[in-house]
Amino acid sequence: MASTGRALVALLMAVMGGVEAGFPSVTPTVGSVWPRPLAWETRDTYYVIRPDAFKFVPSTGSCTILTEALKRYESTMFNNTRGNKMSTGEEWEVKNEFRGYLDAVKVDISICEDHPHENMDESYVIELSPSYIGNGTIAANTVWGVLRGLESFSQLLVPAGSSFTINVTAIADEPRFSYRGLMLDTARHFLPVSKLKENLDLMAMNKLNVFHWHLVDDQSFPYESAAFPDLSKLGAYSSSHVYSAADVADIVEYARLRGIRVLPEFDTPGHTQSWGPGQQGLLTTCYTNSTPDGTFGPIDPANDANYDFLKSFFTEVTQRFPDHYVHLGGDEVDFSCWKSNPNITEFMAQHNITGDYSKLEEVYVKKLLDIVANLPTKNGYFVWQEVFDNGVDIAKDTVVHVWKNENVPAAWKKELDQVTGAGYQTVLSSCWYLNYISYGVDWHKYYECDPQEFNGTTAQQQLVLGGEACMWGEYVDRTNLISRTWPRAAVVAEKLWSATEHTADTAAATPRLEEHRCRLLARGFDVEPLWPSFCPDDL
Amino acid sequence: MASTGRALVALLMAVMGGVEAGFPSVTPTVGSVWPRPLAWETRDTYYVIRPDAFKFVPSTGSCTILTEALKRYESTMFNNTRGNKMSTGEEWEVKNEFRGYLDAVKVDISICEDHPHENMDESYVIELSPSYIGNGTIAANTVWGVLRGLESFSQLLVPAGSSFTINVTAIADEPRFSYRGLMLDTARHFLPVSKLKENLDLMAMNKLNVFHWHLVDDQSFPYESAAFPDLSKLGAYSSSHVYSAADVADIVEYARLRGIRVLPEFDTPGHTQSWGPGQQGLLTTCYTNSTPDGTFGPIDPANDANYDFLKSFFTEVTQRFPDHYVHLGGDEVDFSCWKSNPNITEFMAQHNITGDYSKLEEVYVKKLLDIVANLPTKNGYFVWQEVFDNGVDIAKDTVVHVWKNENVPAAWKKELDQVTGAGYQTVLSSCWYLNYISYGVDWHKYYECDPQEFNGTTAQQQLVLGGEACMWGEYVDRTNLISRTWPRAAVVAEKLWSATEHTADTAAATPRLEEHRCRLLARGFDVEPLWPSFCPDDL
Repeated sequence: MASTGRALVALLMAVMGGVEAGFPSVTPTVGSVWPRPLAWETRDTYYVIRPDAFKFVPSTGSCTILTEALKRYESTMFNNTRGNKMSTGEEWEVKNEFRGYLDAVKVDISICEDHPHENMDESYVIELSPSYIGNGTIAANTVWGVLRGLESFSQLLVPAGSSFTINVTAIADEPRFSYRGLMLDTARHFLPVSKLKENLDLMAMNKLNVFHWHLVDDQSFPYESAAFPDLSKLGAYSSSHVYSAADVADIVEYARLRGIRVLPEFDTPGHTQSWGPGQQGLLTTCYTNSTPDGTFGPIDPANDANYDFLKSFFTEVTQRFPDHYVHLGGDEVDFSCWKSNPNITEFMAQHNITGDYSKLEEVYVKKLLDIVANLPTKNGYFVWQEVFDNGVDIAKDTVVHVWKNENVPAAWKKELDQVTGAGYQTVLSSCWYLNYISYGVDWHKYYECDPQEFNGTTAQQQLVLGGEACMWGEYVDRTNLISRTWPRAAVVAEKLWSATEHTADTAAATPRLEEHRCRLLARGFDVEPLWPSFCPDDL
Repeated sequence: MASTGRALVALLMAVMGGVEAGFPSVTPTVGSVWPRPLAWETRDTYYVIRPDAFKFVPSTGSCTILTEALKRYESTMFNNTRGNKMSTGEEWEVKNEFRGYLDAVKVDISICEDHPHENMDESYVIELSPSYIGNGTIAANTVWGVLRGLESFSQLLVPAGSSFTINVTAIADEPRFSYRGLMLDTARHFLPVSKLKENLDLMAMNKLNVFHWHLVDDQSFPYESAAFPDLSKLGAYSSSHVYSAADVADIVEYARLRGIRVLPEFDTPGHTQSWGPGQQGLLTTCYTNSTPDGTFGPIDPANDANYDFLKSFFTEVTQRFPDHYVHLGGDEVDFSCWKSNPNITEFMAQHNITGDYSKLEEVYVKKLLDIVANLPTKNGYFVWQEVFDNGVDIAKDTVVHVWKNENVPAAWKKELDQVTGAGYQTVLSSCWYLNYISYGVDWHKYYECDPQEFNGTTAQQQLVLGGEACMWGEYVDRTNLISRTWPRAAVVAEKLWSATEHTADTAAATPRLEEHRCRLLARGFDVEPLWPSFCPDDL
């Protein structure tokens, strides 16, 4: 009966004293940081932090993001008071390693910015004095670095009765990649704002910094536009399955306070079935036997009015989403409907591209890119790799999102080579489609994928901005979003933050990942287990 | 880029008016019953049920299970008041199909039994008068039938404002199989009592009637024995990861009230690593180079004291679990440790079975079976198929649990043929290992598996008691138990309850399954989605 040969019975535990707590597959670390910091020294000596006495001492009181973060982390840190065996002051004070009480930690920043952006400086240092003084510092150039430093600091705390111990530690840290994303899809299933916020909390706890929001798709249009209210009125699953302007602002603000960019995606010209009912003439009318058959195809590139619509629509989008970038999609355009439509045929003849539907797609995409680049907000754009593959003329600062060939690393490596060889920046998702679930320990493959591991010059590799975990929504809604996405996305997060030499070994990562999973559970998130084991908070 | 080609875009919806609610893959039925009843007639005419006015009128007040069930179903039925479009009395009273208010439903039983058992009669009928009288009946021979009937009745209700409509309906129903099980594993991960109860609620809502509780395994021993407290003290993950005698009684009672048997499993002689620390001498000492190496193997069949222990242990188990049956495991015994141990070698020589470790296993199993069969409670037993495969002499009323060869139907069909050919009763799980997850719509394969579809006489097929969905716990704990198990287990439930001719077609089941999934969500359970869609309660 049981799951033959797949159980990881750590027999060694029998020898090593694991007998007092069953035989879990993995023994977690205690007080380690995930993702692993670049430089990280820790000693056996420790301070004790008493929640009632502890305070952060910020270098400025006029940086809202900082002020809010300090409040938030005091709550995060001190929420978990499930004690280990050392539960009273008497017990720790007599130990040789005790270095006193840590009642104040200075938090120093030079620059307080308002909005996270693609070039933000996320580096920071943490220093706890090794001698018996009882002070410490979290310092960074910018508020973004301090956010990352606070997260690391919070992970160093180890519950000890109603207090916490923290080892004498020095950390100097910065991310390997500037783009560390997670994509959620709110079109195949609607995701309530509360779940999106939970996910943003978890992203911050894993130092991910871009929430790529795939808002709409064929199945539904949950985005409420002020200029075009019929889009959601007729395209959302129901009037409750909608993100109002206030919801969007709420999410953007929640993300901003955590140093997370929100990259909105409105994918066109394919993946747009749900746009049709709310915008007459937008989608191509499909024909069967020379008659409209009642179905619709991609956006109709021959209808001039559609470009006016797109200009107005994206003007509003880029006002609501402050990020410099917007994701324009451009993937998986099905030509069959275009082929059936006589107006399209005529349009193509006029443009001397008869029979070349890739060229027709290019006509559309080129116009859209020009529209977006010339909006008042002067946005940059992301596109899925097909836009590059089809040879569309795109601006030099376009980011090409590589997503195909999950199971053929050679193919996505070649794609990275070609994209960067042509001088474009790129973000990799091919190996991080978390929606493709499978039985067993599946995170090793996520950890072993490296977006700079392809043939290409150093200059080419520097065009790799980072990577992004994708959780497409066909089989995911509020019931399983958190448990299915996490802690698997945490594995991608470490790969993108930590140095190459620190992410080469799944075995070395394992005990830290186990601690991290239990930590996220202790913080109240239903993140799923990775192997047979237990956490103090899985009860 | 979305999930290429895997999205089920129901283009047809565009024609059929799906445009008012996006483009979900499936349009649910309204007021249909899952699992499908044997005989089920429904008309367009309907009654209205007003929660304040409605009451069940039982034929007896002295049957606790019935009394409790009526209370429970009034709550279940009237909890969901999310109205459809018809929200006031005026609206429904003017419709031609309106047949009046249904204020009372008689609930008739002949026999009130105390404990669910392997031969319980679960048949029932529901009749709502087709003429304008406003009465109805749920009738059954036993309280078990009424439990199933109440569930079906509750599913007929369709929210309409603060009231409910119910179509004029006649149902005569009974299960195809008497054994309809679900197994959970509380050893690889501990599952809190609250989650076990949630799962029992869901089982009742799907007419499953056996909770097979795989209590302990290599990784942990969460079962607290009064006679042998060290087993859990030293074998559980922690002192919190334990089921006390009161917890067990609580689960058994919760299940009993829902007509669900609890089949406890204590798997031996393999899968017993966690038993070792708490019971000296129980496990075989393994040797390396003629010296004990600190590791342990299966239960030591050469140590006579172990049989005394097993007798005492199972005496307590069978007192705590009232079911006639106990599951004794017997799967996946690894011989390597036995081979290394000189005492075992000597024991085998004494028994003239030198070198034949299957025979050694048989010696152990035979003794255990005799112990259990001769306990004061005279229990019957389940064993995993290996016990039969190895030719152990087992009692004729043994139930052989077929679990191997998930991906080789020919192999488990042959096993069913052999087991029943030898005259044994059997339960099939091979095709229903729900822990083996995969991407996409995976329930078709569960629906297409039939435990009587093997070469064998009618008499042989009648030895198939039913089937059981298994959710092994390596990757499952409280965070994902419910969403991963459900609604996938509901598919197995229909296969085991409903008639062969009603479960032949996944397409026909699809719209009912969609309604059922939304129903379970509305009742407060985090059951995961099956395809791109939405429910009123997924917000």
